[in-house]
Amino acid sequence: MSSYHPLTVEEAIEIARSVPNVLRADKPVLCREIGDGNLNLVFHVRQPATGASLILKQALPYAKVVGESWPLTLDRARIESEALTLEGKLAPGLTPTVYRCDAELALTVMEDLSDHVIMRKGLIEGGVYPKFAEHISEFLARTLFFTSDLGMNQQDKKQLVKSFINPELCKITEDLIFDDPYTSSPNNSFDAHLQADAEALWKDGALHLEVARLREKFLTHAQALLHGDLHTGSIFVTPSSTKVIDPEFAFVGPMGFDIGAVIGNVLLNYSAQIHWSADETARRLRRTYLLDTVRDVWTLFDRKFRDLWESHGLDRMSRTPGYRDDYMRRLLQDTFGFAGCKMVRRIVGLAHVADIDTIPDARVRHVAQRTALAIGTGLIKNHRSAESIGELIDIAETAAAQG
Amino acid sequence: MSSYHPLTVEEAIEIARSVPNVLRADKPVLCREIGDGNLNLVFHVRQPATGASLILKQALPYAKVVGESWPLTLDRARIESEALTLEGKLAPGLTPTVYRCDAELALTVMEDLSDHVIMRKGLIEGGVYPKFAEHISEFLARTLFFTSDLGMNQQDKKQLVKSFINPELCKITEDLIFDDPYTSSPNNSFDAHLQADAEALWKDGALHLEVARLREKFLTHAQALLHGDLHTGSIFVTPSSTKVIDPEFAFVGPMGFDIGAVIGNVLLNYSAQIHWSADETARRLRRTYLLDTVRDVWTLFDRKFRDLWESHGLDRMSRTPGYRDDYMRRLLQDTFGFAGCKMVRRIVGLAHVADIDTIPDARVRHVAQRTALAIGTGLIKNHRSAESIGELIDIAETAAAQG
Repeated sequence: MSSYHPLTVEEAIEIARSVPNVLRADKPVLCREIGDGNLNLVFHVRQPATGASLILKQALPYAKVVGESWPLTLDRARIESEALTLEGKLAPGLTPTVYRCDAELALTVMEDLSDHVIMRKGLIEGGVYPKFAEHISEFLARTLFFTSDLGMNQQDKKQLVKSFINPELCKITEDLIFDDPYTSSPNNSFDAHLQADAEALWKDGALHLEVARLREKFLTHAQALLHGDLHTGSIFVTPSSTKVIDPEFAFVGPMGFDIGAVIGNVLLNYSAQIHWSADETARRLRRTYLLDTVRDVWTLFDRKFRDLWESHGLDRMSRTPGYRDDYMRRLLQDTFGFAGCKMVRRIVGLAHVADIDTIPDARVRHVAQRTALAIGTGLIKNHRSAESIGELIDIAETAAAQG
Repeated sequence: MSSYHPLTVEEAIEIARSVPNVLRADKPVLCREIGDGNLNLVFHVRQPATGASLILKQALPYAKVVGESWPLTLDRARIESEALTLEGKLAPGLTPTVYRCDAELALTVMEDLSDHVIMRKGLIEGGVYPKFAEHISEFLARTLFFTSDLGMNQQDKKQLVKSFINPELCKITEDLIFDDPYTSSPNNSFDAHLQADAEALWKDGALHLEVARLREKFLTHAQALLHGDLHTGSIFVTPSSTKVIDPEFAFVGPMGFDIGAVIGNVLLNYSAQIHWSADETARRLRRTYLLDTVRDVWTLFDRKFRDLWESHGLDRMSRTPGYRDDYMRRLLQDTFGFAGCKMVRRIVGLAHVADIDTIPDARVRHVAQRTALAIGTGLIKNHRSAESIGELIDIAETAAAQG
């Protein structure tokens, strides 16, 4: 069974049963393929008699996006399982347990998180996750610090770069985030009412210059091992638990891209939620909750990362007075810029987010889209002068007030 | 003969004879080992009857520097031969022809350049190389542009990063250039009369902050395939020819490190030459020649790199108005900073340069050393605000005048 082929339900059950200490051999199991079929097969195997369950995720040798299909390397399954394993080691409890990997089958067998909800869905439904900022800042600080030249042997880090060379998946980001949204590309997709907004983006030279710099940073800045796709659809939550999944875009890149992905996606929900409920008080509370979350993600990340630097810093030169402050300032600036890019692409680019696309009223949706674009472009344009997370909150509040 | 062992003279001759179309089979050859024995064996094989000759360079599995010996990967021979081959393809005529590589033997068989002189030696002896700036700027512009995300397919470039992961050789640079000179390290070595100058370096917090940033850039900025050790000892010259050798430090890093290596090493010679001759007019002419060379290296590089960008740029976003100017400004700033680091380490660090160390009079040598330190620290401290190569010339002239 070890040469690649898409697994059948029966094969999935057989593999699941071979994992020690999860399923009981003498009880029946049920198996369902629950993937969306675009990139991966996902088998959910459960044993009703014991309540035990697990997930098998198998990469498919192609990608389907909006009807198109193109070949995609199975090596991404190796990258995903290795990244998940490493992240789990560096940030214990914040990823699903990996039971087994099979490189030939492009397969990862892991903990079932059905008791969690995908955070994007949770936020759309008005969920509140009081531990999220604490958890995700821990995930970010520990995975980024310990895979950077600050917290990892600098020669081993070069081998890490080599292991996570990920050209095909990076290409998707380079095109869809750092190119298409800023020109009239056939890859773009947006509501007809956004035509004028999109054209304004395409003509904004000052914006393009900042995006070109952020694109360059994504292409060249081998700072730490990134998750690479850390939006709210890659995070499972409950009010007391946070689990990061799906690091198939992992590569060694600029830290701000991961931090910005989290913040940008919460701000996309913020852009939507303020127009979502008819109840003014509920809207205001929701808005406050989301911005508090964004602020806490950065503030806690900043504190934890600085603490790791103090306690686990390996680089003598990194203890130079003033350097840590300078580094954190640049990291905040990158976070602004990448968060902005993540927002803009979700409004005018190929792939959107349900937070905004599910707003039924086109007029309300348009206001949400314009708010997201205003926040996104504001963050991009101001990223190189950013000094505090408060400026990001101001940009978001100003855009929302004008929405 | 394909499993690794240091070659004998007889084996070197046998390999040389197996290269097609160089030596005649019916005529005798002579072979001499001319390496310094610290890192490599270098065999010079020549055929007096025909005048034909070639070089065999074989890596040794250790490095000896100032009496110390430590193991060093033979993979550097693969890196060197692959880099040399690629550079030769990108910058035709500016590297020795590679006849053969043998990865198992850690061996490169290449063109003999005995009709050239090592540029450091040539400059010390007062040589003038009117084509040097033209040639080295061509080498820099073409090798850096076509291995960057600007001029190379961006997915192939990621494979280039992977092929040239070079931890051991980078570690040497990280320690000897970006750490030791700025602290009282046992690796440092300098004349007793430099004690106060060295201590001033070790206490200069503003300087350390800039060096920490440059160190970070060296560690993380995967911009283009570098030669990695492009000082004047890695360049063979005649008045009409320039050949770059010894790229065993090659890796994908910040372009300014290569450009800065060239400029910093010419400035080390400048620091020495101005105190070298008793003849005031000769000194002034020499000084002018060297600074003109530095200026020309940058100016010609800048023009050629911009031209390549115009004619061969592959990245749509890189055509954003203003981006190229912004990129070239940052490249100049990196060049200032790395040139400065290259100078400082040659005065107080482990490995020095003959340009300065061979000055027999200790008092004159001290003036040269202080001039080099003043230029080096001036470049490092001012690198982030640099706007033109003229500022570098000013820093050099001011330091020389105060020497």
